[in-house]
Amino acid sequence: MKPFTLEHRIPWADVDLAKIVYFPRFFSYFEMAELEWFRRQGLSYEQMLEELDVWMPRVAAHCNYRAPARLAELVSIEMVVKRLGRTSYTFGFDVFRLPERIHLVDGYITIATVSRDAFRATPIPEKLLSYLGGLPLRPESS
Amino acid sequence: MKPFTLEHRIPWADVDLAKIVYFPRFFSYFEMAELEWFRRQGLSYEQMLEELDVWMPRVAAHCNYRAPARLAELVSIEMVVKRLGRTSYTFGFDVFRLPERIHLVDGYITIATVSRDAFRATPIPEKLLSYLGGLPLRPESS
Amino acid sequence: MKPFTLEHRIPWADVDLAKIVYFPRFFSYFEMAELEWFRRQGLSYEQMLEELDVWMPRVAAHCNYRAPARLAELVSIEMVVKRLGRTSYTFGFDVFRLPERIHLVDGYITIATVSRDAFRATPIPEKLLSYLGGLPLRPESS
Amino acid sequence: MKPFTLEHRIPWADVDLAKIVYFPRFFSYFEMAELEWFRRQGLSYEQMLEELDVWMPRVAAHCNYRAPARLAELVSIEMVVKRLGRTSYTFGFDVFRLPERIHLVDGYITIATVSRDAFRATPIPEKLLSYLGGLPLRPESS
Repeated sequence: MKPFTLEHRIPWADVDLAKIVYFPRFFSYFEMAELEWFRRQGLSYEQMLEELDVWMPRVAAHCNYRAPARLAELVSIEMVVKRLGRTSYTFGFDVFRLPERIHLVDGYITIATVSRDAFRATPIPEKLLSYLGGLPLRPESS
Repeated sequence: MKPFTLEHRIPWADVDLAKIVYFPRFFSYFEMAELEWFRRQGLSYEQMLEELDVWMPRVAAHCNYRAPARLAELVSIEMVVKRLGRTSYTFGFDVFRLPERIHLVDGYITIATVSRDAFRATPIPEKLLSYLGGLPLRPESS
Repeated sequence: MKPFTLEHRIPWADVDLAKIVYFPRFFSYFEMAELEWFRRQGLSYEQMLEELDVWMPRVAAHCNYRAPARLAELVSIEMVVKRLGRTSYTFGFDVFRLPERIHLVDGYITIATVSRDAFRATPIPEKLLSYLGGLPLRPESS
Repeated sequence: MKPFTLEHRIPWADVDLAKIVYFPRFFSYFEMAELEWFRRQGLSYEQMLEELDVWMPRVAAHCNYRAPARLAELVSIEMVVKRLGRTSYTFGFDVFRLPERIHLVDGYITIATVSRDAFRATPIPEKLLSYLGGLPLRPESS
């Protein structure tokens, strides 16, 4: 199984005065991949939350910076499942500069599933589990 | 009457690779002043929308750039009423670099009042009018 | 001649608590089109500034908001030349929601050409003029 | 010794469609505290880099989300030193909602010192070390 992959051209708005992508922007790149992946399941992220009657708050976010990304470069954002718990799961992400596939960034986002009424931890819904099953499970992912 | 004034320190996140504030950020500065002004009326922007049962969509936004702002500089954002219509109004804004009060930017945001149910143009509510009366009316504002 | 067109999927990061694209983001969309257009001339924006020995500061930016854009919608950003002066020029932009081509936003950005050494107004370089000649000239553009 | 503390009012621009602060923004809040702390040492971040002849790239960033922040809330951002290595160091951060001091977020940013010419790891300069000595050292910081 291959990671879900999204390509992205670095815009002016994301570059800081050190002439590299401002470091928190990579978390937005991670999330762009996540949203696009949900969309390709045939369900928008918002529809999903409504249908499953859950919220999916982020509980942790992490990023390691290996090499900088610069204006107008094309990067690929790759997404796997890093951990699958009962009431939370973790997406793993890697960003590469194309076409050389230089590894720029790795990181993860941990997401909890909570009920909408009581905002209590609730098991990951079946439908979401089956979607997540379509991604590679890579605990060892950097 | 004096403009409503908010001071702001330029953060790293707002500076682009030309080492100046990325130009759309000034619209966020305008809005920071707007929100803070609402808050000081004793009503948050959100409470206001709910209490008055309106939405206040932006219909136009404009900015003239006279001189750049740079990292860690302190600026003052000044806000007046530029135009007061029946179902819309325009805030005028000026940004100055402190302490010299160098004029960096002027601009405006035009806002409509619409009913929440039908999303139709609706007269500016009395309460909002009375708040707006507390700001200088300066049609000639740059 | 047709406008230069760039398609863009609305990301989570650009949507505000009114559930619509935060209004200043459209200026970043305008600029994404501008950068991509430069890139397709075979010259990055940065290389261009260096080769032509100019800076191109923005002197004005304007946006009219007709209808909102929402999360995960696909929009097209279209770019023309609205005005061609001696030492400045204006790009015109329109944003449409796809596939229906609903007109969401129109606006413009006015850019000056200044010498790098003295930061004085300088005529638009020939090479840039010839590039601009490849875009439709639409003074009447909304 | 007390953490360095910066207060911040949550602006509209930072709130997402879940009506809470968009999660990557907290990294910008961390950095706002960092920059303000440098500024109060009497040296801007940029001057510092120049004087010490180093770059200080971020090598890792982490955030745990405990409770959400909302529009117009006042938060305090608190900064300590979490780890002091030979060629890298880690700032620890906590964000609290005021006035109740509800703990919203904790996290850290790890920063390396590299020479400007060769971009090689270089010991933390004495001057920076002495500045860092003015902050509490809290390895156990959450």
